[in-house]
Amino acid sequence: MSDELSWLYNPAPAPDQSARNAAIARQKQLIKPEGALGRLETIAVDFAGFQGKGQPQLERLSVRVFGADHGIAAQGTSQFPQAVTSVMLNIFCEGGAAINVLSREQNADFAAINLGCVVPTEHPELIDEVIAPSTADFSQGKPAMTYGQLISAFNVGRRHSTDSDCFIGGDMGIGNTTSAAAIFAALFDLKVPEITGRGTGIGDDVLARKIALIESALEQHSAALDSPVSILQILGGFEIAALAGAFIACAQRGTPVLVDGFMATAAAAVAGAINPSVKPWFLFAHLSDELGHKLALERMGVSPMLNFNMRLGEGTGAVLAISIIRQALNLHNKMFTFSEAGVPVED
Amino acid sequence: MSDELSWLYNPAPAPDQSARNAAIARQKQLIKPEGALGRLETIAVDFAGFQGKGQPQLERLSVRVFGADHGIAAQGTSQFPQAVTSVMLNIFCEGGAAINVLSREQNADFAAINLGCVVPTEHPELIDEVIAPSTADFSQGKPAMTYGQLISAFNVGRRHSTDSDCFIGGDMGIGNTTSAAAIFAALFDLKVPEITGRGTGIGDDVLARKIALIESALEQHSAALDSPVSILQILGGFEIAALAGAFIACAQRGTPVLVDGFMATAAAAVAGAINPSVKPWFLFAHLSDELGHKLALERMGVSPMLNFNMRLGEGTGAVLAISIIRQALNLHNKMFTFSEAGVPVED
Repeated sequence: MSDELSWLYNPAPAPDQSARNAAIARQKQLIKPEGALGRLETIAVDFAGFQGKGQPQLERLSVRVFGADHGIAAQGTSQFPQAVTSVMLNIFCEGGAAINVLSREQNADFAAINLGCVVPTEHPELIDEVIAPSTADFSQGKPAMTYGQLISAFNVGRRHSTDSDCFIGGDMGIGNTTSAAAIFAALFDLKVPEITGRGTGIGDDVLARKIALIESALEQHSAALDSPVSILQILGGFEIAALAGAFIACAQRGTPVLVDGFMATAAAAVAGAINPSVKPWFLFAHLSDELGHKLALERMGVSPMLNFNMRLGEGTGAVLAISIIRQALNLHNKMFTFSEAGVPVED
Repeated sequence: MSDELSWLYNPAPAPDQSARNAAIARQKQLIKPEGALGRLETIAVDFAGFQGKGQPQLERLSVRVFGADHGIAAQGTSQFPQAVTSVMLNIFCEGGAAINVLSREQNADFAAINLGCVVPTEHPELIDEVIAPSTADFSQGKPAMTYGQLISAFNVGRRHSTDSDCFIGGDMGIGNTTSAAAIFAALFDLKVPEITGRGTGIGDDVLARKIALIESALEQHSAALDSPVSILQILGGFEIAALAGAFIACAQRGTPVLVDGFMATAAAAVAGAINPSVKPWFLFAHLSDELGHKLALERMGVSPMLNFNMRLGEGTGAVLAISIIRQALNLHNKMFTFSEAGVPVED
C-alpha cells in the first residue's frame, strides 16, 4: 500500500453513544405512542449520534457531483454516447439538471467536479480535477486505472469532502453502471446477471452484451481482484473512486454521508470494505430501479429510506430524501413532550 | 337512501386527460433518460390531471384532523384510555403534536375538528361538530351509529372539504384501529386476524381479544352489512365517516386527496366503494406499520409512496409525503428541457 493512500485506513470516530441515548430518551417523552414514528425516530437518533447532541439539526448540506468517462463505454453498453458526460457536467453548472433543482430546494451548497471526459469541457463553475480523458477499457485486459490514477481519484474525493451536517455525493459518467455492476460482482461474489441492469434504459440485446463483457472482464482479471482497492482500480471509474474517497474522508471528519443509488452504493461498498470504521456514518437514501441495487443493499445489510423507482444518479435520490430527514429532526425537536403537554406519562 | 346523503353519489369530474398528456410530453423533453425519475414523473402527471394544466403546483395544502371516540374502546382494545382523544384534540390546537410540526413545515392550513369525545373538551381553536360523546359499542349488537348520526358525520366531512391543491384528512380516536379493521374485513371479505393489528402497541392477549371482538361483531351484524354505507354505519366511527365524506366531497370539487394510514385508508375504501368516480382523486401516502394496511392497499389496487413504519395516524404519513410531491412538481417545472439545454434530442 502506497503511503499516499494510508489515510484511507485512518479510523473514523464512533458516533456519540451518549447523544444517541439522549435522543432515544427524548423520543420516549414525545407525545405519541412509543415507536409510532417508526424509522423517523431512528433517523433522529442516528443524527444525534453523528452530531454528538440529543437534539440534532440538518442545516449545512453539501452536494458534490463527480463526473468522469469510462473506457468500457466504447463497447456500447450504454444508451447514450460518451459526449453526454461533459454535456451534463455543463448543465450541472448552468443549474438545469434534476440535481440542481433538488439541491436548490434544500439549500445545499453544490459543486460539480470534472475528473475527465472524452469530450473536454470547461465552465467557470466546473471544478477541474481532470485525471485523464477516461479510464481504460477494463474488458480489454488492462485495469481501468493505473495505480497512480487511483490515488489521484481517491484524493480528489478527499479534497472535496466537507465538514457539514450531511454530505451527498452524486455521479455522472456514461458507462458507469457497467463499472458499478462489475465492482459489486467482484466485491460480493455475485453472479453477473443478477447485479447487472439496464442503466439509462438499454434493451435486451445490449444488456446481454453488457453481462457477457463483465463476465469476461472478471475472468480476465480474476487473479488480481484480491482486495477492495484492487477491485476499484481494475473495474472502477474515476468518479466512483472519488466518491469512495469522499465518503471515507467525510466519515473520518464526522460528516454523515447520505448514499444515493447504484454508483454511490458501489463507492460506499468499497469504502466500507477498505475501512469498516466508516460504515456507521453511511445512511442509504433510496432503492434505485437499477436491477442489482436491491441485492447489493441486502448484501451490505442496509435498508434504503425511499423507493420511487428512480434511476438517474447525480445524487438525486439522496437529495430527495433530505426533506424526510429534516422532517424527522423537526418532529424530534419540536413535538411537545408529555410534560410540556401537561399529560401524565402512562406506564 | 336518504335525500340527505344523495350528494355522496354525485359524480366527481375525471382528471384532465389533455393536461396529463401535456405533462407526459414535457417529462419526455426534460434532460434525463426517459422514465429515470420513476414515480416522481407519475406524481407530476397525476397533479397535471388534477389541476388541468401541464405544469401543476402544490401551493394550497389543507390538513384537517377529525377526532371522535369509539364505543368499542370500552372493551379495552386499546393501550390508551379514551380520555386521550380529547387530550390530543387540545394538543392539536396548541400546536404540539406531530401533525402540527409537519403541517407548519409544509405551510398547510390546519384545523382540528371534534365530532365527540367521552371527556368533553373545548378550545378556542377546536372546531365543534360534536355528534355524541362516542359511537355505540358495535360488539354489543347495536350499530356504532344511528342513521342520523351517520348523515351528520358525512356532512361534517363535506363541510370541511376544501378547494385546494391537496387535502389531507387525519384521524384521532382511541379504539379506531378496531373500527377500521372491522370495516376492511366486512368490505373486502377478509379474515379478521390478517387485517387486525396492534394499534398504538397492544400485546398478544389484547390483540387476541380485539380479533375475537371483531369476529363476533361481524357475525352479529352479518345480515345488515350489505352495503358500504351500512358497513360504515355499523362498524365505523364518526371521524372515519367524516373522513369518507370529506374525501368524496373533495373529489367532487376537484381537490386531490392524499390518503394517510390505516384509518384514512378505511375511509377512502368506503368512499370509493360508495362512489367509484372519486377514486382517481386519491393518492396513497404511506404504508403504515399497522398489520393490515398492506393487505388493504393491495385489495384496493393502490401503491403507497413511503414506508417509514409509522403508525401514528393524525395525517402524519400524508404530510410527510407532501415534500416529496412538491419536489416531484419542482423537477417537472424547473428542469431544463433538452432544447433549453441546447442538446439535440436523441432517438
